[in-house]
Amino acid sequence: MTAPHARLKVAVVGAGYWGPNLARNFAASTEWQLTAICDMDLARAHRVADPLGPVAAVASLKTLLDTDVDAIAIATPARTHHAIAMEALGAGKHVLVEKPLADSIGRAREMVDAASMSSLVLMTDHTYCYTPAVAKIRELIAEGRLGDLLFVDSTRINLGLVQPDVDVFWDLAPHDLSILDFILPGGLHPDSVSAFGGDPLGTGRSCLGHLMMPLPNSVMAHVQVNWLSPTKIRQLVVGGSERTLVWDDLNPQQRLSIYDRGVNLGRESPAGSRQRAVEQVSYRLGDTWSPALPEREALADMVAEFAGAIRGHRPARTDGHAGLRVLSVLEAASRSLRHAGLAEQPEDMRLVEGLL
Amino acid sequence: MTAPHARLKVAVVGAGYWGPNLARNFAASTEWQLTAICDMDLARAHRVADPLGPVAAVASLKTLLDTDVDAIAIATPARTHHAIAMEALGAGKHVLVEKPLADSIGRAREMVDAASMSSLVLMTDHTYCYTPAVAKIRELIAEGRLGDLLFVDSTRINLGLVQPDVDVFWDLAPHDLSILDFILPGGLHPDSVSAFGGDPLGTGRSCLGHLMMPLPNSVMAHVQVNWLSPTKIRQLVVGGSERTLVWDDLNPQQRLSIYDRGVNLGRESPAGSRQRAVEQVSYRLGDTWSPALPEREALADMVAEFAGAIRGHRPARTDGHAGLRVLSVLEAASRSLRHAGLAEQPEDMRLVEGLL
Amino acid sequence: MTAPHARLKVAVVGAGYWGPNLARNFAASTEWQLTAICDMDLARAHRVADPLGPVAAVASLKTLLDTDVDAIAIATPARTHHAIAMEALGAGKHVLVEKPLADSIGRAREMVDAASMSSLVLMTDHTYCYTPAVAKIRELIAEGRLGDLLFVDSTRINLGLVQPDVDVFWDLAPHDLSILDFILPGGLHPDSVSAFGGDPLGTGRSCLGHLMMPLPNSVMAHVQVNWLSPTKIRQLVVGGSERTLVWDDLNPQQRLSIYDRGVNLGRESPAGSRQRAVEQVSYRLGDTWSPALPEREALADMVAEFAGAIRGHRPARTDGHAGLRVLSVLEAASRSLRHAGLAEQPEDMRLVEGLL
Amino acid sequence: MTAPHARLKVAVVGAGYWGPNLARNFAASTEWQLTAICDMDLARAHRVADPLGPVAAVASLKTLLDTDVDAIAIATPARTHHAIAMEALGAGKHVLVEKPLADSIGRAREMVDAASMSSLVLMTDHTYCYTPAVAKIRELIAEGRLGDLLFVDSTRINLGLVQPDVDVFWDLAPHDLSILDFILPGGLHPDSVSAFGGDPLGTGRSCLGHLMMPLPNSVMAHVQVNWLSPTKIRQLVVGGSERTLVWDDLNPQQRLSIYDRGVNLGRESPAGSRQRAVEQVSYRLGDTWSPALPEREALADMVAEFAGAIRGHRPARTDGHAGLRVLSVLEAASRSLRHAGLAEQPEDMRLVEGLL
Repeated sequence: MTAPHARLKVAVVGAGYWGPNLARNFAASTEWQLTAICDMDLARAHRVADPLGPVAAVASLKTLLDTDVDAIAIATPARTHHAIAMEALGAGKHVLVEKPLADSIGRAREMVDAASMSSLVLMTDHTYCYTPAVAKIRELIAEGRLGDLLFVDSTRINLGLVQPDVDVFWDLAPHDLSILDFILPGGLHPDSVSAFGGDPLGTGRSCLGHLMMPLPNSVMAHVQVNWLSPTKIRQLVVGGSERTLVWDDLNPQQRLSIYDRGVNLGRESPAGSRQRAVEQVSYRLGDTWSPALPEREALADMVAEFAGAIRGHRPARTDGHAGLRVLSVLEAASRSLRHAGLAEQPEDMRLVEGLL
Repeated sequence: MTAPHARLKVAVVGAGYWGPNLARNFAASTEWQLTAICDMDLARAHRVADPLGPVAAVASLKTLLDTDVDAIAIATPARTHHAIAMEALGAGKHVLVEKPLADSIGRAREMVDAASMSSLVLMTDHTYCYTPAVAKIRELIAEGRLGDLLFVDSTRINLGLVQPDVDVFWDLAPHDLSILDFILPGGLHPDSVSAFGGDPLGTGRSCLGHLMMPLPNSVMAHVQVNWLSPTKIRQLVVGGSERTLVWDDLNPQQRLSIYDRGVNLGRESPAGSRQRAVEQVSYRLGDTWSPALPEREALADMVAEFAGAIRGHRPARTDGHAGLRVLSVLEAASRSLRHAGLAEQPEDMRLVEGLL
Repeated sequence: MTAPHARLKVAVVGAGYWGPNLARNFAASTEWQLTAICDMDLARAHRVADPLGPVAAVASLKTLLDTDVDAIAIATPARTHHAIAMEALGAGKHVLVEKPLADSIGRAREMVDAASMSSLVLMTDHTYCYTPAVAKIRELIAEGRLGDLLFVDSTRINLGLVQPDVDVFWDLAPHDLSILDFILPGGLHPDSVSAFGGDPLGTGRSCLGHLMMPLPNSVMAHVQVNWLSPTKIRQLVVGGSERTLVWDDLNPQQRLSIYDRGVNLGRESPAGSRQRAVEQVSYRLGDTWSPALPEREALADMVAEFAGAIRGHRPARTDGHAGLRVLSVLEAASRSLRHAGLAEQPEDMRLVEGLL
Repeated sequence: MTAPHARLKVAVVGAGYWGPNLARNFAASTEWQLTAICDMDLARAHRVADPLGPVAAVASLKTLLDTDVDAIAIATPARTHHAIAMEALGAGKHVLVEKPLADSIGRAREMVDAASMSSLVLMTDHTYCYTPAVAKIRELIAEGRLGDLLFVDSTRINLGLVQPDVDVFWDLAPHDLSILDFILPGGLHPDSVSAFGGDPLGTGRSCLGHLMMPLPNSVMAHVQVNWLSPTKIRQLVVGGSERTLVWDDLNPQQRLSIYDRGVNLGRESPAGSRQRAVEQVSYRLGDTWSPALPEREALADMVAEFAGAIRGHRPARTDGHAGLRVLSVLEAASRSLRHAGLAEQPEDMRLVEGLL
């Protein structure tokens, strides 16, 4: 057991694109002691480890797990997450996994179960959930500031690398889905998922696409992802009966805008007909408000949360179940894609979680 | 027969929202003599007619059709288009109809057939097709400046009146669909249409929604319409292999932007695999260009085209068939909506047009 | 004397660019009866008068003033304002004058004096002061919501007609100056005016320029005007110790933004030095707020205010003295321009107004 | 003498705000070997030096200059530039100095003369001149793409630190002035400088201000700087008779826009009067074009240029004379500020340079 005030020891597995970011944040944290970078390409591991002080570079996962490290953070390709995580959990280590949690829901559920049985923390690195903007959105929705939700629209488009092993849904949509899972009260549980993809360049996988996800209470959620867009947009709109929120992640001067605008329907009479309601429609054109947001690096908060979950013996804010919910939508999307957009029901993770 | 240089005589039927705009443009045109405004509410007809000079106000369509008017322009609710147009065509008048052409494709086809048999012009008022921006987009695509089309995305969202008799698709999407029909070489012929609507206020009709339309050659077209959005967006993106075009109708200082940006795939080797192509992906980040557009009122060009078609004994640029193609998509969308987004094939208008 | 509920009779003199706007708003007002349009070019007068109902078109000012009209509105070139206004005041008519009030402060003062002696209303058409945005800005400043004023910056640039008889300062700056006069508590009273103009095309008058106006309490006001700018900007920034306000007149979706941001200086110690204050500087990065503004035509409110002033026997909100203050700055600017930007003191209108 | 292919040795003096950026770029350059960081606060020197590999941390300038270092880069407060540079030049070292070159033109000229007499390179770190955008602007002007220059407008405003020892002109305007000096053919040589500052918080120095600089040929240059602005703007407009250019440094998606818009005056007849020219004014509303710019770090190019100048025995692109021209304007601005904006002539650096 780790003493409350000692630093937790952590190693990062994977020194490619994302690993160095994790390493830098663990190294800068007062909660953590970064002990090693592990990569099969030892030179690459050294390039990450050496500037960060006395940090080891190792090529063997087995060797790493034999040390007294408390936790490992996995930043390797998704298809390797399961094997590495299972070995780490088996060695009694807490585990943080880059999104997506695994490359299939079945393997992800094994990881969740293994962590649960060993009372270890399994956390998904849903980084966006630790940005000040997303934290504020969650808070505004939870406090009822938007009223009833009406629609959700998430757009993530830009010129992007055509990935060799995954389509644009598995590459980009985990960001959008993890955000929706975080801000929607009770998490993301769509009634169904319809996916439409385009592969106009003939690459063998969708390079652009849309997810249509009816949510309970006639709320429509839409996610748009695109690797071929000449303009870069990262935007989320959450429409509510009281207010509507727009998050424009690329506008540092006004990231979050809350519009006090909307449509008011007349109250239905006792024998109220919809027609009557429509006739009494009116518009509300109120103020716009843009809350100040702290400038904070999301990854710093994320690694702090990982430490907090371990020390507090509690699930992390974006735990394995969050990762499962995202995967259940991605898998339903892949099935829908194979059937021309047919509505597919995602596996209901509430069953898995024992909530239903 | 009308002498080449005499003004054609026209009357406008319907003095509600759109009729006055048509009337004003006919009155200002050197091609036309506006003779009458017809509305069952005679006072309303007078309010439109009187400021426009010696223009009659009449309440009876029958009376109107007994005059020597050459053409009538119909700006009444969609459900009345068929009856009025059939009566006018029967009386030997050329007919212009506000979008949508009719409230069902069956009735619209009767109108097209009646006009055809009488050698009269039947034109759909797809106003946006006469804006300088849309004309330029059509020209750029036709000249191959965008290369092969990759995707099309049209957004039309704003706080809007919840219509008493139609949903948001029938209210707003005709604009987007008529534009797509106009700019796509050969017109709009989607392989299928999937529609997703949201009615979170319980009004009995979709107040926001998405159309997914796979086009030939793996091109994905997406249309988004929304009456409940706090922000106003009217934007069309046409992605091409060479260039991508963005039309932002609400930015008068830079309505049209053409981005010389995109993804280049490597050439496939003789035994070329897709994987190889992906590995050779590279990016092109070239200049952006925003062509100057004349400031011209679209309706002025539209009424000139109506006169030109009549005088030239030729179909109008947005003729009855264009109206049919838009209706075929709207009807497929309505069917899809009743089946949770199931892909529905629109009636193939090329059969009707004798093109297949 | 006019009975309280009878409509006041008004005629518009000048049927060029601005006159038709005034005529349309008088015609639409329930306070006014528009009786005539007066222009030496009678055909031009008819073109404005005829569509507005039973409105006379006259070519002679003398004839017009012999009628029982209560008031006249002058929309002729600035160099003719004085002669027309004096004749009208002499005939006992209330007078509204398009900006600038006259082409020199001497002639303007004669107009003010003449109106005063006859107890007639002399109003300057400072249209912008009747926009909802400017009304809100005045209110926010008056309520102290911005704290102490720190700086004011007004920009009005666009491709514009090079005027044949005036420079860019006399053409455009009256808008900015009248707004500043309206929103600054106590009106616009700069300590001095320095003007810098550019005439790079050799037209014989400034086509672009800047006014630097130190105001009391070390507040710096800057006005930029330009006929040669390829981009169009109409923006006002009012910096305050508590909040700063930005009015972007070309952004209909967010015209007015109030930033709760700024610099906090430390409190000075009893023997406080400035150095100490500087060392304790800190930043405040609070919320941004954009108040909803009604969509209302400014000219409608302006003509209502003209009627209100006449009926209430009170000065109009933008009265002759406001026009004088604007002229005193314009004249000082012209003097400064002839002396390479030398700081010139404007005639102190508070002396004229008996306030000092 | 340094062999052509050996790395030049450089040390950075000053480990505060800017020094680390210089150090990082020298360390990354293939032209340079970074040998030491020098700071009186040795711990601070170590914090910069240690992560950059085998780089010494030293506290004594004298010790540093006794080594075989080829060049030193000075990133200390401006008031110390002269003493450090003179000592380094005396020791035969090439010198790069952070802007402004010195705290007075007299001291700066001594530095220029000392370098000249010893045939050493003295370079001013005018970083912006090495950005791809500014390089492109210089090229467009030099090629005559804008036609004759008409006006120049540079804005640099943001919430900023109130500096303890300099006003906002000396803190921010060197950026604008060095850019103007770089892009204007022949450098920045204003006929006069008028400066207007505001100190509404009573800090004892201008916290916001404007420079008005008439240039030859009736071109007006205006620079606006502000530490108290709630919004951040970094924008340069260069108006030309053929085209006008806008550089918006905060818009990564469209940094540079070239507008083919403007005013055309009629040709003057042989006895042509200006009046005639004005009457023939017309407008050109052509395309807008936004050239693609490479994404490159300016400092990398700057340190490469420093090496190139040393190896090539030639002046650097932003040499000591560029630094002098910027200082001559700053000193004239300070004089003007003390005289209420009186136009002050900057010392003519062409005399110093032997160009006149």
